[in-house]
Order: sequence, then C-alpha cells, then structure tokens
Amino acid sequence: MTAIGIIGSAGRMGHALAAIVPDLGATLAGGIDAGGDPAGLAHDSDVLVDFSSPSALERTLAAARQTGTPILIGTTGLATTHHAMIDAAATDIAVLQTGNVSLGVTLLAKLVREAAARLGPEWDIEIAEFHHRHKVDAPSGTALLLGEAAAAGRGIPLAEARVADRAGLTGARSEGTIGFASLRGGSVAGDHQVVFAGEGERIELGHRAENRAIFARGAITAALWLVGKPAGRYGMDEVLGV
Amino acid sequence: MTAIGIIGSAGRMGHALAAIVPDLGATLAGGIDAGGDPAGLAHDSDVLVDFSSPSALERTLAAARQTGTPILIGTTGLATTHHAMIDAAATDIAVLQTGNVSLGVTLLAKLVREAAARLGPEWDIEIAEFHHRHKVDAPSGTALLLGEAAAAGRGIPLAEARVADRAGLTGARSEGTIGFASLRGGSVAGDHQVVFAGEGERIELGHRAENRAIFARGAITAALWLVGKPAGRYGMDEVLGV
Amino acid sequence: MTAIGIIGSAGRMGHALAAIVPDLGATLAGGIDAGGDPAGLAHDSDVLVDFSSPSALERTLAAARQTGTPILIGTTGLATTHHAMIDAAATDIAVLQTGNVSLGVTLLAKLVREAAARLGPEWDIEIAEFHHRHKVDAPSGTALLLGEAAAAGRGIPLAEARVADRAGLTGARSEGTIGFASLRGGSVAGDHQVVFAGEGERIELGHRAENRAIFARGAITAALWLVGKPAGRYGMDEVLGV
Amino acid sequence: MTAIGIIGSAGRMGHALAAIVPDLGATLAGGIDAGGDPAGLAHDSDVLVDFSSPSALERTLAAARQTGTPILIGTTGLATTHHAMIDAAATDIAVLQTGNVSLGVTLLAKLVREAAARLGPEWDIEIAEFHHRHKVDAPSGTALLLGEAAAAGRGIPLAEARVADRAGLTGARSEGTIGFASLRGGSVAGDHQVVFAGEGERIELGHRAENRAIFARGAITAALWLVGKPAGRYGMDEVLGV
Repeated sequence: MTAIGIIGSAGRMGHALAAIVPDLGATLAGGIDAGGDPAGLAHDSDVLVDFSSPSALERTLAAARQTGTPILIGTTGLATTHHAMIDAAATDIAVLQTGNVSLGVTLLAKLVREAAARLGPEWDIEIAEFHHRHKVDAPSGTALLLGEAAAAGRGIPLAEARVADRAGLTGARSEGTIGFASLRGGSVAGDHQVVFAGEGERIELGHRAENRAIFARGAITAALWLVGKPAGRYGMDEVLGV
Repeated sequence: MTAIGIIGSAGRMGHALAAIVPDLGATLAGGIDAGGDPAGLAHDSDVLVDFSSPSALERTLAAARQTGTPILIGTTGLATTHHAMIDAAATDIAVLQTGNVSLGVTLLAKLVREAAARLGPEWDIEIAEFHHRHKVDAPSGTALLLGEAAAAGRGIPLAEARVADRAGLTGARSEGTIGFASLRGGSVAGDHQVVFAGEGERIELGHRAENRAIFARGAITAALWLVGKPAGRYGMDEVLGV
Repeated sequence: MTAIGIIGSAGRMGHALAAIVPDLGATLAGGIDAGGDPAGLAHDSDVLVDFSSPSALERTLAAARQTGTPILIGTTGLATTHHAMIDAAATDIAVLQTGNVSLGVTLLAKLVREAAARLGPEWDIEIAEFHHRHKVDAPSGTALLLGEAAAAGRGIPLAEARVADRAGLTGARSEGTIGFASLRGGSVAGDHQVVFAGEGERIELGHRAENRAIFARGAITAALWLVGKPAGRYGMDEVLGV
Repeated sequence: MTAIGIIGSAGRMGHALAAIVPDLGATLAGGIDAGGDPAGLAHDSDVLVDFSSPSALERTLAAARQTGTPILIGTTGLATTHHAMIDAAATDIAVLQTGNVSLGVTLLAKLVREAAARLGPEWDIEIAEFHHRHKVDAPSGTALLLGEAAAAGRGIPLAEARVADRAGLTGARSEGTIGFASLRGGSVAGDHQVVFAGEGERIELGHRAENRAIFARGAITAALWLVGKPAGRYGMDEVLGV
C-alpha cells in the first residue's frame, strides 16, 4: 500500500486528508505541522501532500528532493519566489501544485474552455456560485478558475472581460464580457454554474460539491497518481487525463 | 363575449395584449394611443387595459368613471399624484393597478412571504434572477417584488436587509440580510429563484417565464376578472384568490 | 437543559440523533435498543424519540404513559393497530408521529398544497427526485408526500392522478395527472422539485438535503417543541407553525 | 446573399425556416411541398433545406444532383434505403443529414461524450428531459442522442446501459447504467440535463430551448455553412467545428 505523508496535518484539510486515505486503499505514513521534521516524513512516505503554509515550503521541498519523494502542493497564497522553488524542485522530483484539487471541477473547467472556444461571441457567458454563509470573499476561487477557462477558450484575458457585480442602472450587457454572481447562505459546500446564453437557447455547465471531503478525495487521488512519475511539474488535468 | 379596450395599443405590450385577447375568449373593442379618445373607447369596452404613460392617466380615468368601466392599469413610473387619482377613481369604478401582471409571480410572492414568515433568521434568503442582454437595470423589478415579499414575511423593511452585490473581501454573511444576484445574457425572458438556505438544507422557490406573452395573458385574465366587480382598488393577489 | 431519551439508539438514525443533541442545547438522558428497559429511560427523560421498530411500540408507549413523558415516533412500517395504540396513548401524553422529520420538507409540502389549490388544472404538476445509488425504491417517500400535498390542494386522491413512469409511446399528457420522475446516482442525500407548468411559465418549488443529519436535526427540534404540550396527537406542521 | 430553397414549406418547420432566413442575412429562393417541382427550386437556390417526408427524397436528391446544389436534410423517419440514396448523392454534392439541428445540443452532446470518457464507472449517468404536454413519446429524441453520446464516451452500446423508468421496488442502481427520466407539462420547448453523480459531487451538463425557432436558426446556419463545400456527407458537429 502507498504510504502518504501529510504536511499540515493539524489543519481542517489535514484531518480530512487523514480520514479519506484508507477509503482510497492507501496508508498514512504520518503527519507534521509547523516545527515538525519534513526529512523524517519524506523518508517514510511514498508521496507527500502539503496543505500547510508558504513559509514551510522551502524546507519541505529540500526534504522531498533529498529522498526523491513526489509531492502534491495544495497550499494557497504562494508568491513568485515559491513558484521558482517549485520549478527548481521539479527538476529532481514529480511535483503537482494546484489551487483546486476537485476532479469534478478540473473536468468542468476543461468543458467550459472547449464550449467557449466553439461558441461565438453572440453567446453570453455568466458564472454563478453559491457558498455557505461563512465565506468571506467573492467570487470564489473556483468561479475565477472557471472564468479563466472561459476566457482562455475565447482567447482573451479574464481581467478585461470580467464583470463582477450588477446593481442599479447597468446599461445593456456588453458583448464579450463574462459576468459573475455570488450567492451566500446556509452550509452550502460549493455550487458553480457556467451559463452560455444565446438567442433562444442556453447551455448550462455546473458542479455541485455535497461536502468538503471531495477536496481531500481529489488530493489523495492525485497524490496516488503522482507516485512513480518522472521528475517534472504536473497539473490536475493530467491526473484526469484531459 | 367581453370587449376589451387597450390604451397604449401601439406599444410592444399593446400588440401582445391584442394578440392574446382571442385566446382567452374575449374580443377587442379597440385601441388608442397618445392623442386618442378614451371616452369613445371606454364607451365601447367592458373593461379597459392601460399600458401607456402616466401623463395619459388623468384623461383615461375621467373617461372610465363617466362610463363606469373597470380598468386594469399596468403603466409604470407612477408618482404619488397618480396614485391619488387612482384612489379617487376607485370610489366609482373597479381599478386594479399593478407593476406585475404575471399570475405565476403573484403566487410565488405569496409563497415566499409565507416561507419567510415560518422559517427563522437562521435560514438565509438569497434571490437570483436571469434576464436577456438588453435589460438595463438590476435587480429586476420582479426580484425586488420578491424581496419585498420575503422582507414582509420577516416583518422588516427590505431597504435595511438588502445586499445587492458581492465582490472582493465581503466578510461573512450578516444574519437577516437578503442577497440579490443578477445575471444577464441571451434572450432570457425572465427567471427568478428565491433560496432559503439553512443548516444542511435548502428550499428553492422559483419562476421561469418562457416568453413575454405571459404578461399579456396575465393582464387580460385579470381584466376579465375585474368585469362586474364593485368599485374599489384591487390587487393581482385577489385575481388569483390568494 | 432538556433531557432526551433515544429508543433505537444503536441504529444509523440513533447515532445521528445522539450526535446532534448537544448542537441544539439539549442533553442525552440515555438510549435503549431491542430488549432495553423503556420504563427506566422514560423516567430519566423529558421527551422520548423513537426510531426503532413497530414491535417495540406497545411497551414503549406503556412506559411513556406511566411517566407522562411526551414522545416523537419516527419509526416506519406502522400498521393500523399501531396507529390505534398511538391514538390511545395520546389521551394521556403528547405524541408526534410522522414519516418525515425534515422541517424544510414540511414547509415545502405546505407551499405545494397551497400552490395546487390556487392554480387551475391548466397548470400541469410534475415531481422529480434525485437520490443516491443505494436507494431501492421509487418514487421516494418524500416525493409521494409532496404528491399527496399537491393532490390535496386539488381536492383529488393521489392514486387517481399519479403517473409514475413514462417510456415509449405515452400519448399526450392527460389533464389533472401528477407525474413522478426518479433519478438515482452518487451519494445524493435527497433533492426534490415540484414543477407547476403552465402556458408560457413554470413555478418550481424544491428542497435539497445536503446530508442526512438534517433529519436528526428536525427530529430533535420537534421533540424539544413537544415538551410541555398537552396530551394529544401532533404533526410536524404544528412544530413549524404552519 | 445566399438564396435558400425550402422543401416542405407549408409545414410548421417550413414556416419557421422562412421566418428566420432574413435574420441570418440570407434570402428565400422559394418553397415547395408535396407535388411541387424540386428541379426548378434547386435551379433557383444556392442551398436546399428539406423538412418534408421520406417519400419525396428520391426526386429531391435527383434535382439537387443535377444542379449541383448542396442540401440539408432534416426529414425524420428515414429508412436504410433513404440513407443509401443520400450516400449516393453525396458523391456529387454536399449533403448534411441530421435528426438534430440545434447547435447548442450538438455542442452539449460533444461535451457529454468527453465527460463520460474521462469519468470512471463510479460516476453514475442520469438524463432528465422536460417537454410540453403535447409530446407523445418518451424519452425525447434529443435525450436519446445525449444518451448515445454518453454511451459512446464509455465505449458501450446505449441499448445495454439504458434504464428508462423507475417505479416500485427497483433495487439499488446497477453500475454502468444510464438512467432516463421524462417530465411533461405546460409549453416547455425542451430542457435536457445530463448528470454525472459521483461520491460527494455532481457535474450537471444541460441545455434549455426557449422556443422552437432555435431549430430553424440552427438549420439555416448549417445550410449557409454547407454552401461551397466539396461533395460529401457532413454532420452538425462539423458546422460547429467540434
């Protein structure tokens, strides 16, 4: 059985990861947090899964390179310097860094990009998302990821096309824009829908997360896929084969 | 057969009204526009339907009172003075003034009010609407009407509860607020959804208009209901019996 | 703090009930299963919650009557004889027996009944439900409950109106029927939607359960409501105040 | 301007085609029905659009071949012999024969096929469709087309996987099946949704037709695309470039 080492094991995602490992036929090598020893964990693990903080990344990558252990990095808030460290590490080991570990969202983004590329600018693109009442920012990171996919399909930068809020006298919709709408309430884990609205018809491409365990499931699935891969930097789309 | 007179017959709604009249077993008495003679039309009609402009209202009401003809007023942009005229006319004739002539929306508003009254403040209320790309304001008048119904059910003014746009670092959702989200695209005649999001469950109450003919259908249905009613001011909820 | 006694504590619902009790400001008096002593539990509890089997009901009700303890009965598969026992017990104690303990579904059923009563037979009623892949029957009990509410609103028996499956050359839809459609897949806890489809417009009334904990939450909420109520038989609609 | 000739001009689709032609920057060469002269029409047209009956096909194709006029065939109920005639004609002229002329549905089918190919058998596939009360068969042709796309993505024949109705004691869902659910009511032009339901998450891919004019729009768009193409048999996916 593949042994998985968790960096950031005391956080909410760390607990979710540990809980899902046995369901996916793997075993837990151990877990560390701030101040823990990544070298020992890397030695004991077939693959590392890191959902901790950017400040720990340098030591973690050094440990992984020394033992040749592949690593999935889901830590958020990475700066350019962290990406440079990851690129350097990827010359020695297999690294998958991503802001989204859901396999369903990864596929949806692929389909959205394709639809946006096929449908002309007379099809308006709108993205709606619904999250629980505790979420503090809008739109969600996943909504923006889907917007990036739509913009890439159209061959334009999202920043130019994005319309993030509509209230008051907005005027008619501008062709080529991508609209975002954010709803908040209850305990919704995360619903996303991308609508392509044309003359007389609509295409609706959506994803519903029932709970946050799907993110842990996606991360471990990706980590298992990473074992045995040659050195290099990978993405979630490769895990899914898209 | 009931004879219907249309004020504002040359407008888009005027055409839609004339087209639907035969489908509902009524007949067209005639139609006028700016400069037309409301007295003659009132004389020939069993009921008047007015989707014209506020400036025509004084003459129209005078004509209707003289012949005792009931009238449905769907004209928008009415000021306090116009409402005073309508109240005065309602001492002589049956008048139904409304900003929404859809029977489906009328019922939905009733259900939303009831749900808001029954569900405690731990259920968050969100209202989403989707309209065609030519619409120039947000949220839609119907979304605001549904928001008023929700706020009335909660016993609070909508102005205090309303959150009209979410973008950036919004912070967590405030209890008791009512959120609005507006989507625009294609040729969508008008979709509305009110969501009550609680802990672990959601109630979703929505309405979809397939085309704008439903508004003409609702107006004529209400006008037919108005024939024979005693003098007074009526609402769409009475047409539906809610 | 109100002390809650659970009958059927070893079952899946028993565990869910015990887990939710502290969240709702109550405390656990204890739990029993087949062979356990209901008299002792009734003595220690302010209210009993029974999700066990019909065969245990006689002894359970006798114990509750002796100590004057109110009881919520969510056990399924009750026969006429069991209902007679419940009616007899309700002369001494407060009893709430129900096949559905979700507050959201209870409210939805109320709204569906009202909509069906207001909308004429030219509005077709359809009920769709989506449940996880392990569910062995169709339509779901909740879908049938919603169908009963719609039929009651129309003043007809559901058995006459129900159309449970459509495949092949069905012919045009018969006026007054209520259609059911069942979807199965994944781990969906339970989505229900009742659609009223009229000429050019639709009203959609739906409920989404994110997980099965909402049923435990609804049961304990109802049990807490039952404490201090006079002897009699109650329903979930009274808990909600509808 | 491209001149379009309509075969079956007196039917409902014929009228819809004629109405949409000017919106798409084309002009009407003329139209014929049973007994009309296809040779004259083919001579006057840059492209033919045929929504008539299979019995007329032989004469129509002969006329098109003589003048080298491309043809879009949307006629339904074709037998093997008709397909042989079309194959023969396609050696001389460009022919596009299809049972679905919606560009939105064509794209959706492509996305469904891709999603089915990427997601493993632990993702259950369900297809729901909603059509107006006058529709006499179920599931809709478009739902079956989407089911074919899903089955093709999985590399299995639809006939083996298809589950068309669920009622009563169905037992748990069988892995690898594709479920269909049909709803009927009101005046719905046609809604379709394909759901991929996995553990803890769902992907929903759908299409909504607001009216039947989209089919005429798709047919004329495809006909315009066909002008100037080399001899051969084409499909709607090529019109969309997918």
